[in-house]
Amino acid sequence: MNVHEKSDLRAFFEPGAIAVIGSLNEWGGLGYTAVRNMLRFNYGGRIYPINPSYKEALGLRAYPEIAAVEDQIDLAIVITPKQTVPGIIDQCARKGVKAAIIVSDGFAETGEDGARLQRQIVEISHRTGLRIIGPNTIGTLNTENGLVTNPYSISYDKVYKGNIAYCSQSGIVGAQGQPLKDQAYPISKMCDLGNKCDVNEVDLLNYLYQDPQTSVIAMHIEDVRDGHKFIETVRRVAARKPVLLLKPGRTERGAKAAASHTGSLTGSERVYDAAFRQAGAIRLDTWREFWEIPRIFVNQPLPQGNRIAIITFTGGVGVASVDTAEECGLAIADFSPVTVSRLSRLSPQLARNPVDLGPIIPVTENPLPVLEETIAAVLDDSNVDCVTATLYSSSDAETPVYMDILDRVMKNVTKPVSIWIYGTELAAMEELSRQVQGRGFPAYFDIELAIKALATAARYSRVKSSLDQ
Amino acid sequence: MNVHEKSDLRAFFEPGAIAVIGSLNEWGGLGYTAVRNMLRFNYGGRIYPINPSYKEALGLRAYPEIAAVEDQIDLAIVITPKQTVPGIIDQCARKGVKAAIIVSDGFAETGEDGARLQRQIVEISHRTGLRIIGPNTIGTLNTENGLVTNPYSISYDKVYKGNIAYCSQSGIVGAQGQPLKDQAYPISKMCDLGNKCDVNEVDLLNYLYQDPQTSVIAMHIEDVRDGHKFIETVRRVAARKPVLLLKPGRTERGAKAAASHTGSLTGSERVYDAAFRQAGAIRLDTWREFWEIPRIFVNQPLPQGNRIAIITFTGGVGVASVDTAEECGLAIADFSPVTVSRLSRLSPQLARNPVDLGPIIPVTENPLPVLEETIAAVLDDSNVDCVTATLYSSSDAETPVYMDILDRVMKNVTKPVSIWIYGTELAAMEELSRQVQGRGFPAYFDIELAIKALATAARYSRVKSSLDQ
Repeated sequence: MNVHEKSDLRAFFEPGAIAVIGSLNEWGGLGYTAVRNMLRFNYGGRIYPINPSYKEALGLRAYPEIAAVEDQIDLAIVITPKQTVPGIIDQCARKGVKAAIIVSDGFAETGEDGARLQRQIVEISHRTGLRIIGPNTIGTLNTENGLVTNPYSISYDKVYKGNIAYCSQSGIVGAQGQPLKDQAYPISKMCDLGNKCDVNEVDLLNYLYQDPQTSVIAMHIEDVRDGHKFIETVRRVAARKPVLLLKPGRTERGAKAAASHTGSLTGSERVYDAAFRQAGAIRLDTWREFWEIPRIFVNQPLPQGNRIAIITFTGGVGVASVDTAEECGLAIADFSPVTVSRLSRLSPQLARNPVDLGPIIPVTENPLPVLEETIAAVLDDSNVDCVTATLYSSSDAETPVYMDILDRVMKNVTKPVSIWIYGTELAAMEELSRQVQGRGFPAYFDIELAIKALATAARYSRVKSSLDQ
Repeated sequence: MNVHEKSDLRAFFEPGAIAVIGSLNEWGGLGYTAVRNMLRFNYGGRIYPINPSYKEALGLRAYPEIAAVEDQIDLAIVITPKQTVPGIIDQCARKGVKAAIIVSDGFAETGEDGARLQRQIVEISHRTGLRIIGPNTIGTLNTENGLVTNPYSISYDKVYKGNIAYCSQSGIVGAQGQPLKDQAYPISKMCDLGNKCDVNEVDLLNYLYQDPQTSVIAMHIEDVRDGHKFIETVRRVAARKPVLLLKPGRTERGAKAAASHTGSLTGSERVYDAAFRQAGAIRLDTWREFWEIPRIFVNQPLPQGNRIAIITFTGGVGVASVDTAEECGLAIADFSPVTVSRLSRLSPQLARNPVDLGPIIPVTENPLPVLEETIAAVLDDSNVDCVTATLYSSSDAETPVYMDILDRVMKNVTKPVSIWIYGTELAAMEELSRQVQGRGFPAYFDIELAIKALATAARYSRVKSSLDQ
């Protein structure tokens, strides 16, 4: 089996037919909830609930066992007591199922008894070629076809389609753990690898490398199974798509916690860090960054350098943001004489970076053209590689005007722009954010994140050109 | 004039009568908007709009000049073109006004012409004893009496009363720049010091030191006018109330930006940092921290040490949070044998820190008593000084049950607890957050912030005992 075959995870993300093996009790049965989630998310394939106690569930015919299904099954979702799992996996293999997601937990993560059970499963997988994600996972999500294997109650029915793949070893990265709809994250695929008894981070990277819907990969990992192969794979993937890693274990105690959680050894932090860097992966520091930073890669071009222009409506924030920019590897751009003169025509105070429009706004009849000319001027400057601009949200109806400004200034521009939104009402800020993101601009309520997103893009731009060579 | 007199800023925060000098044009006149804001925020004192072109504004009698008002004026708010300001300040002094907030800008922050104008004002202040905040400021806010001097449009009419004083040199820290109502920040006072031509950070600290409504001070400063006096003052204040500083200039370029923004010299960063630390001030890193961290000091006791217990519903987040805790100076508590045995009775997997309830929840009929016993057990442990606990918000109605649990476990407990909230719907998360905060617990959507809040409390606890000695 060569690498390419081994990494073909299509059955996990693009199955034509799914068997769901678990409780069909309509009051919280995990099999029932998994099927209901699929129907609510408009999964387009065929679904076969499997349970000997039911003839029907959610309007679908139920089968006593997987062998009774006449259709070819691509993916089985197994949510049964752990002792039953090896037998069920065996039945799946006999039926010719290509892939199984084992949601059940109580395996290697709990001790030697569980590890023994897990080894039985792995043995079947190796013997038959049945690929397995898990155990101890919520599985996969694919916005292209409405697939969601999550067996927990999700209080919404839609995840936005986009180009970010979120991968994890934890169920926190799932539709039952995040307000994916409210946050409008533009998602291609999600995957919780769980215990990684078979499919691991390398397989997933290989699949996402080839996935045309994915243009950026955010990956939370606690351990790496084969360091050499992982680094080799990241290097290949990072030449085409950004690979952003959230990996705990920066501190000694953190590394110990990661080891005890996954039941596997974690390597020396320094060795990991150097290897990640060499391979072109970019490490993130917080869960907020994990969710929010990938947005910068969805619609924005890569910056050609690290010189940032910052436009705020408030000098205090502008000044504080200089520290952030410098600390994450950006340089405050020195404006060219042409830009200085364009900005000075608006007001002599504006001709410095960060540009503070604050004093101009109250004394200008209509400050929006000033904002537009300011953004246009700094984008035109060949000393500027990327821009963080500010939009102020009040309850007034300035949103359409902002959208027009963004549309006009961005014409023919090939520099990335991130937007910091502030204002007086959360609901209005959230609505403005959705509108701005709908236009392809990553929007943030923290200016530090807006700047760090650009810094991450600048870093990836350097990574990409070094890997291209 | 001794320090005590010089620092009595009562007229700025507790005026009985206010004169508002500025445009009363109802379509955006800044004087008009300032008066309207005061009325909407239910300011209880007497308001005198001053403008020769109007006989009346918002149902209040308007006066052509401040001399025409027969009442004693405590505070004048000056929002007029900069050239007129020295004359108006002179009139205020003649009238016996105690304090003036100069909103107008265009002074020292813009260059030598403005600096000259500013010196004229300072001269009047020194000669007459009239105290001045500003120029270039939005002034003060006091939730005790509904005072708000902000002349910009605010889309809400209420700020929550509480014990946090937010101070700044920037208008971003104001009701026109923050969703103060939606975020339910528990606020005592707010103050934008602007150009600090007279009243500065030392005066403000002295006032807040004595203010019974204020129990924690969050202060954004770009420069310090008298380093020696500032350090001396911080040391005195910090022995009684936490002083949290957001001060840009961590990087060289950041320090340069701060200097050019305020028109004053900023000192060497290293000197500042050492002096702050010595005086017991605690520095914050981001605006988000500036707004969110002070909450931990409002209702929670100070921790007696730095050993944290972390309770999550998701192992992945628990593991990653160990790094955060260690990096910000906390130690992961080693549970006592009693705690290990109490937790093991619930499930053998629970007896380690961070405690991951994730695997227990799906297999437990009612996981809430398990959550309650877990929180109670770790709070009882004498090896634990502080706790971050997790609440999961779905669209279900678990909120009242959570509140009951918090009420019960916190009885007779004298350790601080911060709450990390996650879930599937932003609106439900925000509502749960408000409920939890209403019970006195600081709640955060980022676990890193929940932990950093406790780390800040632990640091302040050490500062306080060293200053007490």
